[in-house]
Amino acid sequence: MAIETDRLCWLNLPSEGDMPAAVKELWAKPLEKLGFVPNVLRVYAIRPRHLELWNAFYDDLMRGESGLTKAQREMIAVVVSAANRCHYCIVSHSAALRKLTGDPILVEQLQTNLAYAKVEPKERAMLDFAVKLTEQSHRCTEADVEALREVGWTDEDIMDIAEVAAMFNFTNRLASGLGWRPNEEYFALGR
Amino acid sequence: MAIETDRLCWLNLPSEGDMPAAVKELWAKPLEKLGFVPNVLRVYAIRPRHLELWNAFYDDLMRGESGLTKAQREMIAVVVSAANRCHYCIVSHSAALRKLTGDPILVEQLQTNLAYAKVEPKERAMLDFAVKLTEQSHRCTEADVEALREVGWTDEDIMDIAEVAAMFNFTNRLASGLGWRPNEEYFALGR
Amino acid sequence: MAIETDRLCWLNLPSEGDMPAAVKELWAKPLEKLGFVPNVLRVYAIRPRHLELWNAFYDDLMRGESGLTKAQREMIAVVVSAANRCHYCIVSHSAALRKLTGDPILVEQLQTNLAYAKVEPKERAMLDFAVKLTEQSHRCTEADVEALREVGWTDEDIMDIAEVAAMFNFTNRLASGLGWRPNEEYFALGR
Amino acid sequence: MAIETDRLCWLNLPSEGDMPAAVKELWAKPLEKLGFVPNVLRVYAIRPRHLELWNAFYDDLMRGESGLTKAQREMIAVVVSAANRCHYCIVSHSAALRKLTGDPILVEQLQTNLAYAKVEPKERAMLDFAVKLTEQSHRCTEADVEALREVGWTDEDIMDIAEVAAMFNFTNRLASGLGWRPNEEYFALGR
Amino acid sequence: MAIETDRLCWLNLPSEGDMPAAVKELWAKPLEKLGFVPNVLRVYAIRPRHLELWNAFYDDLMRGESGLTKAQREMIAVVVSAANRCHYCIVSHSAALRKLTGDPILVEQLQTNLAYAKVEPKERAMLDFAVKLTEQSHRCTEADVEALREVGWTDEDIMDIAEVAAMFNFTNRLASGLGWRPNEEYFALGR
Amino acid sequence: MAIETDRLCWLNLPSEGDMPAAVKELWAKPLEKLGFVPNVLRVYAIRPRHLELWNAFYDDLMRGESGLTKAQREMIAVVVSAANRCHYCIVSHSAALRKLTGDPILVEQLQTNLAYAKVEPKERAMLDFAVKLTEQSHRCTEADVEALREVGWTDEDIMDIAEVAAMFNFTNRLASGLGWRPNEEYFALGR
Repeated sequence: MAIETDRLCWLNLPSEGDMPAAVKELWAKPLEKLGFVPNVLRVYAIRPRHLELWNAFYDDLMRGESGLTKAQREMIAVVVSAANRCHYCIVSHSAALRKLTGDPILVEQLQTNLAYAKVEPKERAMLDFAVKLTEQSHRCTEADVEALREVGWTDEDIMDIAEVAAMFNFTNRLASGLGWRPNEEYFALGR
Repeated sequence: MAIETDRLCWLNLPSEGDMPAAVKELWAKPLEKLGFVPNVLRVYAIRPRHLELWNAFYDDLMRGESGLTKAQREMIAVVVSAANRCHYCIVSHSAALRKLTGDPILVEQLQTNLAYAKVEPKERAMLDFAVKLTEQSHRCTEADVEALREVGWTDEDIMDIAEVAAMFNFTNRLASGLGWRPNEEYFALGR
Repeated sequence: MAIETDRLCWLNLPSEGDMPAAVKELWAKPLEKLGFVPNVLRVYAIRPRHLELWNAFYDDLMRGESGLTKAQREMIAVVVSAANRCHYCIVSHSAALRKLTGDPILVEQLQTNLAYAKVEPKERAMLDFAVKLTEQSHRCTEADVEALREVGWTDEDIMDIAEVAAMFNFTNRLASGLGWRPNEEYFALGR
Repeated sequence: MAIETDRLCWLNLPSEGDMPAAVKELWAKPLEKLGFVPNVLRVYAIRPRHLELWNAFYDDLMRGESGLTKAQREMIAVVVSAANRCHYCIVSHSAALRKLTGDPILVEQLQTNLAYAKVEPKERAMLDFAVKLTEQSHRCTEADVEALREVGWTDEDIMDIAEVAAMFNFTNRLASGLGWRPNEEYFALGR
Repeated sequence: MAIETDRLCWLNLPSEGDMPAAVKELWAKPLEKLGFVPNVLRVYAIRPRHLELWNAFYDDLMRGESGLTKAQREMIAVVVSAANRCHYCIVSHSAALRKLTGDPILVEQLQTNLAYAKVEPKERAMLDFAVKLTEQSHRCTEADVEALREVGWTDEDIMDIAEVAAMFNFTNRLASGLGWRPNEEYFALGR
Repeated sequence: MAIETDRLCWLNLPSEGDMPAAVKELWAKPLEKLGFVPNVLRVYAIRPRHLELWNAFYDDLMRGESGLTKAQREMIAVVVSAANRCHYCIVSHSAALRKLTGDPILVEQLQTNLAYAKVEPKERAMLDFAVKLTEQSHRCTEADVEALREVGWTDEDIMDIAEVAAMFNFTNRLASGLGWRPNEEYFALGR
């Protein structure tokens, strides 16, 4: 069950020339910030209007105002993607989290078995909830929500935790279901 | 593991008076069309900006132009939500699909065990892919994508199938993780 | 993995003319009461003697004297069949429970995720036990039995709860293993 | 998670003196044939009428006329009970199968991992179907039924295979859910 | 999925004449003690140097000094092999445990469902830990280790429990992955 | 479920002064080669004789003559440990494989989802077998062995593949069951 290695994904993508200006505009910021265009912005361009709308939502969720720090949101991204064994998202969000924390050891702990990660109790509760939501959402109960309040999260924060965990259950399925390959640059980023 | 029955969800929601105008605007269309405000637009209002952006994306994905009919997109919604045992989404999207198809039997077949549903081979392939994406995305292969092409879906269509299936993996987790209750109106709608 | 739709099941059945009188006698009561012969009484007729003996046991278990109401026994039927994703039994017993309770909302809650059903604590304990028996019987312990006593069930009642749950683990396997189709009349019954 | 060892099961049973004559009559034959009363006939006596009706069905299914030999029916009993890890039924039906076949090695192979059992291809197909029915009935397809026909089973035989497999999914749940202990005599029987 | 029955395993083994003296030396002791050469010492001889080194470790672990009796170590062997459904190891270690305890009933209880085994609380804790280590090692926590201390095991003993459980996770995979057949003598040994 | 972070594992270890000379001798080689003593040689020292014998076997299996290269053996170590979510072994063997291959990208691919790894077909077959052996050994068949022969592995090689995969099913359980922490040096090694 090998993945074709010379292609960005299993779907045939429009050529770069055929991509609408709106898509190319999305490329500018990461190109400047990272030095490359994340493959998600290429493979998702097969449906440009969806890409724009998804990206607007994703960007606000991950980088907009929130009771969670950006690093905490990326921690959720890593543990959810690890639970789902999503290659693209583990690789790209581990890179993002290394950049935000400067702590590659923490990232590898989260990526392999979060019980070994040195995180605050408040963060551990957040991550345990994200994993339960991922693996067995239909068994979640009000007690799970209460446990988050007890360590200090507000109800707005809990909504954000759930949304971020849910978001990577979205992206993980696109990436794994369509064979997305991460940019090679991610592997070394932030080490 | 009972769910509190007098509340819309496990989080404490802002009072209706505190909700921003942008949220209330979202309520107008369904209120006119259905006669009630879907609870998702109330419980998600704890984070108004997220709601707006998610809704813009969701609306285009489910109701915008696509190689999939609206009914086919709702069929995916039902089988994914059934695989995840998400009460809110099974109930609300079964109602939507009954309205679109006028076929409550088909909807109940999809809801209980899709193998018994009378659907076209092209639709069956679409639904089988949506379930595999939901249950074991990390085992998806290029052959799964090829199987969709063989029954006549274009690469753009396959992207839409994957996105819709992924979307309900997002909403199912919010709904089940935060104890959302569907409006009682849904149960009888379209019968 | 579609199911052939023009046939009652995957086995070749004897023609109606070849069915023994004893089988036809079983048809009389439901025909009068429901207006149709439940397909189980047709597909099981491939082995008439087994059908008679199974039916005698089933009928006493589900409708005979018991500390459980008939509705409670049908509630177990619905949640066990939902756990096993048995199309035939979910559809037919949801209909039966709608008729007994006049509450289609309750039935759909039980069918999709029983945590959302508005039931008495005594009934919830009964249903949780039925699901555990279905999904992981080898992990049941005396504490599970004790929990049923604590909410007020007698030992005879607990035997009945276990028997009814076990019965649908029997019928679910026949129905799903042999591709039984429910009568279309069931879908609308009791709504 | 130890099981109380001095009691036949977790429920409080009626005293022997309180058992109706009909129950005691069921004891006569095994007492004569085996030299002891199988515990199932004691623990099930908490509901005498159910016991009588279940026993009449069970007896015909396991010992009445069929295209399956009695040994083949007991082989299904052993592999289904092993799949469900049901202590009572593995122990008692392994004894029964040893008596019928005089082959304790075959029985232990079936009990531990049926792939290692020396059985006819026709029997292997029968046992593989019984296990699939037990472990994932909702994934059974018409092809599974066709595979049984191809090795020579008639449709009536296939019904019997399914019924016997389903029967032990019934008894396994009663036994494991209520903590039934097998008679110690079973362990040495037929060796 | 039948196993070829006339061969010791799926690999082609060197002829007896080609086996090095070091391998044959390992055969002497069991030949004298049991009257036959355990098949493991034949099938593992495809890699003689590995066999010698594995055997030296295995022998010390299972028969050397320890806070666990030899019977306790064989109890772990049986429950781990049962959890992994390893035919070779269940059969051969059940025989060993019957010889050590003279209690075939206990062995069959451990083999089918350890909750029914009459063992000391200290041994039950040991066996529950061995099963958790086998089935979901990544969910083990310090509380699991603490539970073993509380019933009286020292830290050295706990290391031995973990090592013995881990050892059968090693041998089970070799045996099941390469189709090893146990000597027929094992089935009757110690009864 | 956090892991205590200041300790090497959950067991109380003998002080360095109390460790026998034989253990310390094992430390010399890695200390020279890596610049530190791998924690496995400290935590396993609670049972010095077991450590010596295990290490002798392990060393020959992983570094002795074989039809598999050292890198191929470490590739198996990484994918088995990833399947078992064993933090200690993923971290330490990813480091070893980075050193052997100089290819940190390959290692991260194997660690997250081996389908995305750029490996030879012969190696892919080897890794798929190692994962099947790990996750569902009781479902392995002779066809799995045949598939390895077809891509060019000899029977001796197949024995080595199975042994190495089995070995990490051993070490993963010790490490995860007893809370072993990897040396921090491993995280950066070979990048």
